[in-house]
Order: sequence, then structure tokens, then C-alpha cells
Amino acid sequence: MKNIPLKKKERIDDLQINNLKIIQNTEKFCFGMDAVLLANFAAQEIKKKNLVLDLGTGTGIIPLLLWAKAQPKKIIALEIQEQMAEMAKRSVLLNGLEDTIEILQGDIKNPPKEIYPNTYDAIVTNPPYMKNISGLQNPEQSKAISRHEILCSLEDVLRTSKRLLKPRGKFYMIHRSHRLVDILSLMRELHIEPKRIRFIQPTREKAPNLVLIQGIKGSKPEVTIESPLYVYEDNGDYTQEIYDIYQWQKEK
Amino acid sequence: MKNIPLKKKERIDDLQINNLKIIQNTEKFCFGMDAVLLANFAAQEIKKKNLVLDLGTGTGIIPLLLWAKAQPKKIIALEIQEQMAEMAKRSVLLNGLEDTIEILQGDIKNPPKEIYPNTYDAIVTNPPYMKNISGLQNPEQSKAISRHEILCSLEDVLRTSKRLLKPRGKFYMIHRSHRLVDILSLMRELHIEPKRIRFIQPTREKAPNLVLIQGIKGSKPEVTIESPLYVYEDNGDYTQEIYDIYQWQKEK
Repeated sequence: MKNIPLKKKERIDDLQINNLKIIQNTEKFCFGMDAVLLANFAAQEIKKKNLVLDLGTGTGIIPLLLWAKAQPKKIIALEIQEQMAEMAKRSVLLNGLEDTIEILQGDIKNPPKEIYPNTYDAIVTNPPYMKNISGLQNPEQSKAISRHEILCSLEDVLRTSKRLLKPRGKFYMIHRSHRLVDILSLMRELHIEPKRIRFIQPTREKAPNLVLIQGIKGSKPEVTIESPLYVYEDNGDYTQEIYDIYQWQKEK
Repeated sequence: MKNIPLKKKERIDDLQINNLKIIQNTEKFCFGMDAVLLANFAAQEIKKKNLVLDLGTGTGIIPLLLWAKAQPKKIIALEIQEQMAEMAKRSVLLNGLEDTIEILQGDIKNPPKEIYPNTYDAIVTNPPYMKNISGLQNPEQSKAISRHEILCSLEDVLRTSKRLLKPRGKFYMIHRSHRLVDILSLMRELHIEPKRIRFIQPTREKAPNLVLIQGIKGSKPEVTIESPLYVYEDNGDYTQEIYDIYQWQKEK
């Protein structure tokens, strides 16, 4: 492994897939299961020749996992927070992936000039989930930006995606399921037609809390609702599918 | 039971709930599980003081089940096909429910003058599922009208519902899940905001094929995706929930 300097409060976590490591700051937003499930959902369709864009990459977790699972030709990842972008860049160097993954610092609403319109085969995004309602925000500003629609709304993400995707390009997002109507209506309005929807349920008997959505720029209507992704068995163990996605081995 | 005359190819079926009977014609569209699941979904919220409208009632199954499960003050049911409407009227008489259930013959796109705008607490509809693509229709014209959007489209049903519901009135529909984006986008556009969505899956591991949707006229955004309704256990038995909805007793 390369010798990449760590800053205060940073640690290196082992992703336990393809020997990948990631730098995270224990006082900032750390990646969660949602990023892992989104990367898995998108990787099922991403091809080796694809040019992929991750909007709001945070720690850089999604480019690392997409590379591990689908080896696309190139992944560009945009992050507005300078410290997060700089940390993500060091994670890319740590894994020696600087020829494949490029981290750019910039605003989703007005992407840097290196990002061209009508270009990407796939756009992946795990945007802030919460509406920007003052009083409900995380007091630590960096975490708040990752979680609340402070610097970018659902509509900003979709408008930019529509502009940057090439015709028939694919859009992948994970979001809270209670935003479903907002998401589907806006996607249709912007001609990123929703084509695959998969709800995530804590267990088979509990209501979904998250949803994975794939849309295709310029496609015709008609959506497939896939079978739900269940996280836990009734006894509290992870389901076999979660084991498979994380590539964990079950203890015998 | 009253002595109501049957016509050719008609038979009386026992609904096995509150001693209700229904007349069906073996050569026309007969009600299915979808009508039963929709009536159950709506009945959870319909109150005794409510004025309810069923758009496209067919055999009259939904008014009969709503009466059995929720006893609303009055149910008006509209059916465009004269023979179906006449048969549904006889089912109402057969059950002695003519003071509560009124079957009207008429067009959803242009309802008869007895149906006033901004009036109904709840509208329930099990509309034709299939798009009107020539060549795919049922050769028997009456069944085709019940199944395909020949005389009325999803948009017709929603536009009329918007006009007839009173402010904050509730709209209930069952439809094929692949039409989800069409349904949710149109509902939002017409200000019948989707508030409850429940997918119906053949089993826990299979993808949904149907969806129950409730919307409230003039409500604010934010939808609850409920836990799915599973029809069969893995061993092929009906689930306990289906037994409960049909009020069947399990054989010991």
C-alpha cells in the first residue's frame, strides 16, 4: 500500500473487497449502507466501456465500489466540500486508482468545465435526503451539507443529470421512499424516465424506508418494480443478499 | 333472500361476508381479487358518515364490500355498460341495500347530473388496466371495456375524481404496478396528492404486479410506502392477511 498521509481524526478503513481502502474522518459524514446498495444496484448494469459520473461523492466510496464491481473505463466524481474532495483524492491515490477515478471539487448546480454535457453513460448519486428546513439541521456544518438539501436540492441533481447524461444514458439514485412522488414526477418532467424501482425494507414485514431508482434519458414510460431488498431476517441476522452485496463470508 | 330474476348465463355467488350475494354473468367480466383488496384498502379509512363514489363498478362488488366492511352512509356507483349496471342494480336489490347503494348508468368522462362536483368524501376505482392498443383486446366487447382503456383512460378517471371529490377527499385505486409513474405524475399534476402506496406481491420473493394507491385532494407532498401485501406463502397457501381480508376460516 502507498504511503498516504492522514490528517487529524482520519482513519483508514478496509472495504474488504478487492483490497480497497478508504480514508474517513470520524468527525465528518462517513459512508453508510445506502452507498453500498446504490453502487451494487448501478454496477449490475454498468459496462467496462462506460464513462460514469458520481454527483456528490463525499468520501469517494461509490467510485471505489463501482470500480471494484464493474471496472468502468473512467469515473468522474464531484464533491462540493473542499476537505471531503481532498480526502477522497487521497483515497484514490491510496488505492492506486488515479488513472480511473478522478475527484473534482465543484458544485452540482454549476459543474466545473472538465465535466461536459451529453457525455455520461451513467450518473450515480446518493444526494442529501433531508429537506432544508432550518432548525432540523446537523449542527456540524459538513455533516449537515451531506445530509440536508442546503447546497443542492433533488431538483438541482436531476436538472444537472439530465444535462450531463448522453441520450439513453442511465441515472441511478438512492433516496428516502417518502420522497417517491417528488422523485418520479420530476424525473418524468425532465425526461429521465424511471425504468427500475427497488424498495429497501428493514425486514420482510416492515415498510420500506429507502428506494433505489434507475431512469433512462429519453426512454418511453413503463416501470419495473423489482422485488424488495430485505436487509435483516426476522431473527436480526443480515439476509443472504446483504452478505452477497458486501461479499462477506458467513461464519459456519 | 328476495326473489330477484336471473337472466341467461347469470348465477348468484355468495360473498361469504355479512350474508352478501352477488349476481355475475359467466360470459362477462367477473370480479377478481383486485376488487376485494381495493375495497379492503379503502374500508380501513372510510367512515360511517361518508358519501362514497365508485367509478366503473362493473358487477357492483366494491359497493357491496365497502358496505360490509365500513357501512358508509351512501355509496353511488357508476357503470357505463347498461347490462352490467342493470345486473349490479339487481344485486343491490337481492341484498336489500337499495337505500344505501345507488347504481347509476353513465360515462366517467361525463357523469350523470345526479353526481355533483366537490361532493364525495371518498372515490374508489378499479379502472381498466390495459392501454387501448388495438389487436390486444378481448374479442368479447363487454370484457374488453372492463379491461382496456377503450371508453375511459387513467387520465379520464383522475380528472373526474379531482372534480367530484370534496376538498381533502380521498381517492383509492388499484392498478398494475408498471403504470406507477403515469399514476403518480398525473395525480400530482391534478392535486390529488399520493399519500399511501401499497404494493401487492404474489410472494415475499417475487416482484409486485399490482399497487394500491390512496391520494388526498389538496394535500401536501410526502408519501408513505406501506409494507407489501403478500398473496401466497412460499408453499402456495394464501397468507394469513388474505385469509383475514376474505374473512375465511383456516381449516385446522
